[in-house]
Amino acid sequence: MTTIPSPLRIGIAGLGTVGASAFKLIRQQALPLEIVAVSARDKARDRGLDLAGIRWEDDSLALASASDIDLVVETIGGSEGAAKALVEAALKNGKHVVTANKALLAVHGAALAQLAQNHQSMLAFEAAVAGGIPIVKTLREGLSANRYEKILGILNGTSNFILTHMENQGAGFEDALAEATRLGYAEADPSYDIDGIDTAQKLSLVTALAFGCLPDVNAIPVEGIRNLSHLDMYFADELGYSIKLLGIASRRKDGRIEQRVHPCMLPADSPIGVDDVYNAIVIEGEPVGRITLEGRGAGGGPTASAIVADILDIARGNRYLPFGPVGVRPHSAIFVPSDELLSAWYLRLAVKDEAGVLADVTRIFAEEKISLRSFLQHSHQPEQAVQLVLTTHITAQASMRRAISKIAALASVTEPPKAIRIEE
Amino acid sequence: MTTIPSPLRIGIAGLGTVGASAFKLIRQQALPLEIVAVSARDKARDRGLDLAGIRWEDDSLALASASDIDLVVETIGGSEGAAKALVEAALKNGKHVVTANKALLAVHGAALAQLAQNHQSMLAFEAAVAGGIPIVKTLREGLSANRYEKILGILNGTSNFILTHMENQGAGFEDALAEATRLGYAEADPSYDIDGIDTAQKLSLVTALAFGCLPDVNAIPVEGIRNLSHLDMYFADELGYSIKLLGIASRRKDGRIEQRVHPCMLPADSPIGVDDVYNAIVIEGEPVGRITLEGRGAGGGPTASAIVADILDIARGNRYLPFGPVGVRPHSAIFVPSDELLSAWYLRLAVKDEAGVLADVTRIFAEEKISLRSFLQHSHQPEQAVQLVLTTHITAQASMRRAISKIAALASVTEPPKAIRIEE
Repeated sequence: MTTIPSPLRIGIAGLGTVGASAFKLIRQQALPLEIVAVSARDKARDRGLDLAGIRWEDDSLALASASDIDLVVETIGGSEGAAKALVEAALKNGKHVVTANKALLAVHGAALAQLAQNHQSMLAFEAAVAGGIPIVKTLREGLSANRYEKILGILNGTSNFILTHMENQGAGFEDALAEATRLGYAEADPSYDIDGIDTAQKLSLVTALAFGCLPDVNAIPVEGIRNLSHLDMYFADELGYSIKLLGIASRRKDGRIEQRVHPCMLPADSPIGVDDVYNAIVIEGEPVGRITLEGRGAGGGPTASAIVADILDIARGNRYLPFGPVGVRPHSAIFVPSDELLSAWYLRLAVKDEAGVLADVTRIFAEEKISLRSFLQHSHQPEQAVQLVLTTHITAQASMRRAISKIAALASVTEPPKAIRIEE
Repeated sequence: MTTIPSPLRIGIAGLGTVGASAFKLIRQQALPLEIVAVSARDKARDRGLDLAGIRWEDDSLALASASDIDLVVETIGGSEGAAKALVEAALKNGKHVVTANKALLAVHGAALAQLAQNHQSMLAFEAAVAGGIPIVKTLREGLSANRYEKILGILNGTSNFILTHMENQGAGFEDALAEATRLGYAEADPSYDIDGIDTAQKLSLVTALAFGCLPDVNAIPVEGIRNLSHLDMYFADELGYSIKLLGIASRRKDGRIEQRVHPCMLPADSPIGVDDVYNAIVIEGEPVGRITLEGRGAGGGPTASAIVADILDIARGNRYLPFGPVGVRPHSAIFVPSDELLSAWYLRLAVKDEAGVLADVTRIFAEEKISLRSFLQHSHQPEQAVQLVLTTHITAQASMRRAISKIAALASVTEPPKAIRIEE
């Protein structure tokens, strides 16, 4: 019944950490998989791989047209250039593509999905989201009977390491980033990770899978963790929260889809509150309720696990459309504009120690019809300004934005206000 | 590419909570699924289902031979009788079977898998393990590239509710069981749940999927939670542990498979430490590392989610063997005998308050070459015996069994010793 084709013939483009790990793992499988060709930048480099009998292509694009290749593994990376050219050409030639490239899919996923559909090719990308956690398959198949309501994820290990380090060691952002770099968790240019771009790219794929639309990373309002201070960590702890960088996608009652990426205060005992480089994803669906997945979100081994699972799926004939429910044409979703996004907020103000400040602030909140939930006043260190910490009930982002700009203009407020969303 | 057959024609046997929930959920799907017949005990009962146009069969076995049925959903339950007859007949007639029946599969899974293979039928059972958590698909497909090392699960919601209640409320076992019964979490005869049988049945399926063998529930040493006392909860807390009922399967270096079900002390901050009726499963594999899944392990909605996911998989043509890696014939595993199982232990002794007891006990441990890790002595309440609590390093079960029986025979030990395994 299970029809296994004669060996599935594979070409691998890119032999960095992920490509090399996938190479080794493919060779350990029981199903007949054959690596016939590889392509990477530096042929001379020793990667500890046995390349005997395997064709070397200097130009990765050659993998897309080789008649002896059924499936191309793309681990080159980047949304443009060689990776895009290779994936496009391979799909056009009816070859299956397995990729870990979230940037490519977040930017060009809609067009590539159409190409795959037109040419009866598979476009598989388990490795593009949350490393070893099988979130793509879980959304597409494991929980496919559900109507998804909300997906909430810690999707970037580098940021999560930095935030954990700040929280546990009382470190500032720069020191925590330096530690992440020292341990090899942060790249030379860490902006993709710490500015939330990587999380947004992954979230766009999660949104597409959960809500049956095409990925649109440009529709996601993004805030990173660069501006978080030790003081905010301190007050989060006092309020019973941890600060995590979250990607959130949810369905409104009116059918519109909310997407957002930002640091967020979570209850300290939240099931999604994983530490260090771990990723976690909460899926809320009807009728399954809440399902949580945790695991390593990056690294050669976990990413190779995802790549080879995709290959095995294709080898044994499992067929599906790249995004959206099987058999349903993906459609464009209507995304909620950022002004209408709803959140509860934490707001920290450095204020002069004088009467009337709180009255001014509460008047502004009243004007914007924002309901306050708690406040605490704190002189963190003797020489410092008084820290006024307020939390609000859920409110629209536009109202909060206006309130913050009015508050920032008060003479008694001595620094730009720090605002962080709260997710219960 | 994705070939959707004309409507997949479904017969449902059993319309209890799970069957009725599946009935409703099937009708909400976008793929063409058609319920053509149902069978249940009481035709007159109002289940809130629209049965118009659907054939009623008084005998569920009729679903197995009906020419207008492609797939049978079995929610009758039980390892013998009507459920077994139906599943056997349906598979023999080339019909696909989707079942939530862990008892049937744990006892007859090997034979039924062979039947399915012989007759080119699918036998799908996501709903049989951990309710809404897609653990079967995750082991079979999502993490299929890995070599599994260990699976550890809280697989029974009733027991977990009772243990959580004992821990949080300081309740004894009988009171916690009464509360579970009052809330509808425990059945009139709760022995299946609290004696670990349900967990063992689920574990046998997990073992088969993870280690490519056939399920063998009789090879699993099982201990339930009936004998846990409030005192053990108290000391567990003092030692930094929670007590959970676990199913554990792991692979030894010599290739043999360990399976066991017993209450176990887990570090209080363990990622698997879910409370109340939630289930959780930790999967350790190479190269993915550690993956954790959490969610509701029972109830109509979560179970229906799993049943309908299996149906959708079959409807869109995903084909796999019931157990073991795809394309590999399942084989029998060699299971480690219970005497050779390795654990660290907690041992609680009620002893007379006299000199020399500890010397006797430590001498016995030395004789059995069991290495002690910690001990604490505690007079819990003035009139009670002194409580001596010891923890050991990892040791073989046979050594521990001998040590316990020697210790129990000491004149200064006033009650049967209480021994609980520790899992770090």
